[in-house]
Amino acid sequence: MPVLLAPDQAPTLHELLRDANTAGLDYQIVQAEGPAPRIRGLGSLLRAGPDEISFLSNPRLAGQLDSCSAASVVLAPGVCESLPGRPWPFWVVQCGQPYLMYALLAQWFDQHRIKGLEVGVHSSAIIADSAQLGAGVSVGPYCVIEAGARIGAGSRLGPGCFVGANSAIGGDCLLHAHVTLYHGVSVGDRAVLHSGAVLGADGFGFAPDPRQSTGAWTKIAQLGGVSIGSDVEVGANTTIDRGALEDTQIGNGVKLDNQIMVAHNVRIGDHTAMAACVGVAGSTVIGKRCTIGGASMISGHLVLGDDVHVSGGTAITANLGVPGRYTGVYPFSEHTQWQRNAAVVAQLAQLRRRLRALERLEN
Amino acid sequence: MPVLLAPDQAPTLHELLRDANTAGLDYQIVQAEGPAPRIRGLGSLLRAGPDEISFLSNPRLAGQLDSCSAASVVLAPGVCESLPGRPWPFWVVQCGQPYLMYALLAQWFDQHRIKGLEVGVHSSAIIADSAQLGAGVSVGPYCVIEAGARIGAGSRLGPGCFVGANSAIGGDCLLHAHVTLYHGVSVGDRAVLHSGAVLGADGFGFAPDPRQSTGAWTKIAQLGGVSIGSDVEVGANTTIDRGALEDTQIGNGVKLDNQIMVAHNVRIGDHTAMAACVGVAGSTVIGKRCTIGGASMISGHLVLGDDVHVSGGTAITANLGVPGRYTGVYPFSEHTQWQRNAAVVAQLAQLRRRLRALERLEN
Amino acid sequence: MPVLLAPDQAPTLHELLRDANTAGLDYQIVQAEGPAPRIRGLGSLLRAGPDEISFLSNPRLAGQLDSCSAASVVLAPGVCESLPGRPWPFWVVQCGQPYLMYALLAQWFDQHRIKGLEVGVHSSAIIADSAQLGAGVSVGPYCVIEAGARIGAGSRLGPGCFVGANSAIGGDCLLHAHVTLYHGVSVGDRAVLHSGAVLGADGFGFAPDPRQSTGAWTKIAQLGGVSIGSDVEVGANTTIDRGALEDTQIGNGVKLDNQIMVAHNVRIGDHTAMAACVGVAGSTVIGKRCTIGGASMISGHLVLGDDVHVSGGTAITANLGVPGRYTGVYPFSEHTQWQRNAAVVAQLAQLRRRLRALERLEN
Repeated sequence: MPVLLAPDQAPTLHELLRDANTAGLDYQIVQAEGPAPRIRGLGSLLRAGPDEISFLSNPRLAGQLDSCSAASVVLAPGVCESLPGRPWPFWVVQCGQPYLMYALLAQWFDQHRIKGLEVGVHSSAIIADSAQLGAGVSVGPYCVIEAGARIGAGSRLGPGCFVGANSAIGGDCLLHAHVTLYHGVSVGDRAVLHSGAVLGADGFGFAPDPRQSTGAWTKIAQLGGVSIGSDVEVGANTTIDRGALEDTQIGNGVKLDNQIMVAHNVRIGDHTAMAACVGVAGSTVIGKRCTIGGASMISGHLVLGDDVHVSGGTAITANLGVPGRYTGVYPFSEHTQWQRNAAVVAQLAQLRRRLRALERLEN
Repeated sequence: MPVLLAPDQAPTLHELLRDANTAGLDYQIVQAEGPAPRIRGLGSLLRAGPDEISFLSNPRLAGQLDSCSAASVVLAPGVCESLPGRPWPFWVVQCGQPYLMYALLAQWFDQHRIKGLEVGVHSSAIIADSAQLGAGVSVGPYCVIEAGARIGAGSRLGPGCFVGANSAIGGDCLLHAHVTLYHGVSVGDRAVLHSGAVLGADGFGFAPDPRQSTGAWTKIAQLGGVSIGSDVEVGANTTIDRGALEDTQIGNGVKLDNQIMVAHNVRIGDHTAMAACVGVAGSTVIGKRCTIGGASMISGHLVLGDDVHVSGGTAITANLGVPGRYTGVYPFSEHTQWQRNAAVVAQLAQLRRRLRALERLEN
Repeated sequence: MPVLLAPDQAPTLHELLRDANTAGLDYQIVQAEGPAPRIRGLGSLLRAGPDEISFLSNPRLAGQLDSCSAASVVLAPGVCESLPGRPWPFWVVQCGQPYLMYALLAQWFDQHRIKGLEVGVHSSAIIADSAQLGAGVSVGPYCVIEAGARIGAGSRLGPGCFVGANSAIGGDCLLHAHVTLYHGVSVGDRAVLHSGAVLGADGFGFAPDPRQSTGAWTKIAQLGGVSIGSDVEVGANTTIDRGALEDTQIGNGVKLDNQIMVAHNVRIGDHTAMAACVGVAGSTVIGKRCTIGGASMISGHLVLGDDVHVSGGTAITANLGVPGRYTGVYPFSEHTQWQRNAAVVAQLAQLRRRLRALERLEN
């Protein structure tokens, strides 16, 4: 299901690069035969058609250039020169950061789609009188925005979003359908929040009631909020709980994939990225520029410094002050082989004792 | 809270089997005393009442037949003959596939419930003019269906579903309340999509911006879609992300439990089943007829062949070309015992060295 | 984003304690200089301002009392006497259970917020004629309540909730926005259900169809329901599936954090608490007063007795009859060190054999 612009809406290659290159990257267009192409879409080297642009960022895929039928390909200059086969049948765009240029091109095509969406507040949206909407805000059908909430200029809310009392969303944010913000949640500018994300649900706090022998729990109402910086993305069905007394805090530029759980009082530093299904337990502090692999879990009340990288599936159960990569996933094997080895895991301390005994005999 | 039909709506045993047996299974009814019973519901051997039918598929539960008060029980012929106690007080249905017959009977009772639901498009549903609805489509309250979307004949959408622009749902699908389809998502016939499922959210793609020393990420807009075959079930709060450039693909007959995460560009082969809480990272290809146990994680950019079976809790971090069962979960133990053994895990390489040293002394 | 009452709505310290102490705890107020303060909010020792109350429950934080600027602090009597620095600049509340008193104070402030919410049934809510609403029930915008459903007195439903046919919610419950109850789900009194929670989706049940060589699955319709006791909390995006034939059962006082998956036919005993991201597979029975750490998984068809405590990240794959703490998480380490040790894990059975061989040589 490729997204192709109608031919009369497609820019020329030169127009596309000029408009998409919002980062000001250096690039050079190497002309192929014929007139400058109009570019209707963006595809991979193997799939892009003759109206599309493609890119090569991984040099190991250079062999795919031979069968590429794209109108144009973005390439690093060095890769370009080392390859045979020229003149290419496509227009080459030489660029030192082809992957970043790809990201910009993809954004351009996606923006084109978003610009086509209806703007305005749908008549079925229920917006409290005291809520404030900036200029050019779009609110989809069946959204509910409670008293005192604020939505910054240019932000768009998909159908069925809920923004609780006194919550604030910055400018140019995109909330897809069915996003839930409880009361007292603040989000900075240019956030992208995906469907099913829940921001500001109660942290998990209960006090045992020592007078009861039944084991009953007394709820600790969660009075803090959630405070999220700018340029943050929150994936589908990810949950970020509100703090017990102060705010759970997510820094600028943080990227959270789907189905992540951020517990109450957690603080995550700028530009940290987490893959899907990660859980971060309560009150843990994670530094800047960390990457957390998918399905990892970080225990509560820990401090992870800046530039810590956790491999997927790893359980972090202690503070990490030193930058580096940390791993703890158990290697899998064919089942019967695993059974033999797994049984020994529960005897390791005994094995070490037996080894020591042998060593003593030798000395 | 058993589901019992009103007595005047209940079929006779013969009618029930004739109607429910859509698979054409062979079966034989062995008469008990009295008139042929009317069957108002379906229950387990221990709980089914005198108006209900039950089944025995696990031979180890045969002892429960003695105290069974069901009107009728489905049994395999062999089991039936090997047991004492006859004549049974219930009507026996001899069938070579009692578990499959149970599935068909359960479907019959569930269909009876679904047939009782209202049909039609609720007046509060917001449906774009260019959207196409097939014959007999039901759309619940507060659904939103965007431009260019298509819903096939006989499909039902529960309350609050969202179907994005140009998405397509086949015939006879069932979307429970609060299902979210982004734009450009296609689903085949007879799908069952559970509440909170999100299909088509952005894949997790970001390019580092090498010009920035801050560690900032640039979003890679996700231009692909999601393409899902027929006879697929997607569990509650499961997420399937859209592809970066092409579609994320789910084959025919795939069954996904709740809270599963399928990342962008993944491809899953026909009839593969995944238990709850599984994560599949980006661009991984999984073959046909695989089973993936609960809470497993599959790393990105891998290829798993057909008929691969992954045990629950296992992290798959390498290609699997050979059919078979693979496991990697760490065995648990009582906490203090675990502490002793876990400490040794971090010394295993050293232990092996010490063992080698001893072996050299002996030789 | 602290929650502070307006000065004219703030109670005096004496009024606050009298009203908040619904548990009848013993406490004693030790007067400081000046008039009895009015209390506008509740904060931590380091952040509470001069209009707020704070508490000390962890004796290791006693040093923070020196710089505390709260109007009043709740303290255990013993801690109070062992500390220098008196007279304190704040009013001391001596109480034997300072953490429980904190929970009660937090509830009081949260109740104050909830009391400020609008009461009543929003005109956009769609409620079936045969549904029954108790006195003082609030139903938010765009809720849908189907035929035969019952909502007990004093319960509140946030925007966009769905209550399926014949489901029942007890009295004084709080459903936040976007909670989904399928048909045939019952919930006791005083439940708190968070956004995105899905109760009653189909359990994951499929029968292989032995007549088909394709590997196709036949759905086993799930005819049971979900039965939840009183005083239960269900976290955001948590899913509890309906039973195959009987009800999935959650006892009284059970507390479930976010993104937990409870599969069909599971039974969980009273006052058991589970941290986020836990998965419990089908038909497992868990006892009373258990605690299950975050991201743990419990296999299917197991029985865990009362007072079992599972550490975070642990896979429980066998019955647990004895109370105690069980752990199985693989210890992480720096990546290259992990690589060395992980390789040996797959050789453990061989290592043990080699050790045995050496031991035989010595004897």
